[in-house]
Amino acid sequence: MILELARIDIREGTNQAFEAALEIAKGVISQSKGFQSITVKKCIEQGNRYILLIYWETLEDHTAGFRESELFKEWRALIGPFFLEPPLVQHFSDLRMSK
Amino acid sequence: MILELARIDIREGTNQAFEAALEIAKGVISQSKGFQSITVKKCIEQGNRYILLIYWETLEDHTAGFRESELFKEWRALIGPFFLEPPLVQHFSDLRMSK
Repeated sequence: MILELARIDIREGTNQAFEAALEIAKGVISQSKGFQSITVKKCIEQGNRYILLIYWETLEDHTAGFRESELFKEWRALIGPFFLEPPLVQHFSDLRMSK
Repeated sequence: MILELARIDIREGTNQAFEAALEIAKGVISQSKGFQSITVKKCIEQGNRYILLIYWETLEDHTAGFRESELFKEWRALIGPFFLEPPLVQHFSDLRMSK
């Protein structure tokens, strides 16, 4: 299982509308193959910052499957207008002792 | 419950030693008041990057309780030597519809 960590900074004063759009967008992303779960959290120190913790079965379920799908266009159309800048997205795996 | 998200970039080639030190350090932080859980994950795109997802009962359990404790000194002595730069630490709360 892979964690997608997305850090999203939104335009000032759009929190309420962004959070409402995200509620709808969750219903979109959750239809994608390999999607496991999504958790949204809001930054305490920085009022316009959010993180999404999204779990996927495999890395490709996100990077190829979702990102190249019609669902992604719908997802991005819902929440994209609130972005202050492109989100920072990285993927994380569980720890195995490195070599 | 509060999520502390810490992003740690370590010096190249020290992954194995860092991960071993972190295993010990987990036993230190977990003794702190209000500590709930810690999950460590490794970045797929950037081999020297880790995130710690640490849950605390309250914000102050981390920012005052732990950071001003002897346990913190011990924790930092274990993992600090591997840091490439100061970690990026922010706190996140669950979403409640913003006003």
